[in-house]
Amino acid sequence: MADKVGQKFMRSNLGHFMKHFEGFMVFVGVVGPFATLPQLVKLYFTHSQHASGQSLVTWSLYAALSLLWFVYGLMVKKLPIYVGNGISMVLNLLMVIGIMIHAGVTF
Amino acid sequence: MADKVGQKFMRSNLGHFMKHFEGFMVFVGVVGPFATLPQLVKLYFTHSQHASGQSLVTWSLYAALSLLWFVYGLMVKKLPIYVGNGISMVLNLLMVIGIMIHAGVTF
Repeated sequence: MADKVGQKFMRSNLGHFMKHFEGFMVFVGVVGPFATLPQLVKLYFTHSQHASGQSLVTWSLYAALSLLWFVYGLMVKKLPIYVGNGISMVLNLLMVIGIMIHAGVTF
Repeated sequence: MADKVGQKFMRSNLGHFMKHFEGFMVFVGVVGPFATLPQLVKLYFTHSQHASGQSLVTWSLYAALSLLWFVYGLMVKKLPIYVGNGISMVLNLLMVIGIMIHAGVTF
């Protein structure tokens, strides 16, 4: 009996934690993509002379990958997937454009 | 009757496509993180003199975010989430270390 109560308590505590953690990860999925902003500031405004150090391949693949996740998110109707990756897609494309402007075609 | 058959056909075709698309996205989730490799090559080997153009804030946040997704993936036992983000975490940490080595503390 005491064992069962203990198990129930553990389960409900874990369930409670997971519910909060899920909500937190939805927040992370939507806000996380903005981590790219400082990199965009460096590329466009403060460190444009170092643009050739940015990998056009990496940022183009990032843009393509976020497009795929955006489409997938729309198809499975998961808001944190398509909103977060929609934002990522725009910011990654801005990185691709910035590299092309300031460094031209590079790898 | 014909309508019902048509609907069934549509549903099974969409279901078939989604099954393949899901499998493709699992592949994308695991292989996608390797997109960071060209950026690592530029930072460590070919364009180290441009390291100060890399945003330490962006790559540190990327590393922290992939750690969160890695932990979340383990907790919900979803292989494509924890494998992909585990790889990302390592590669993003290598970016953070490379920026610290070649440019020191920057934003």
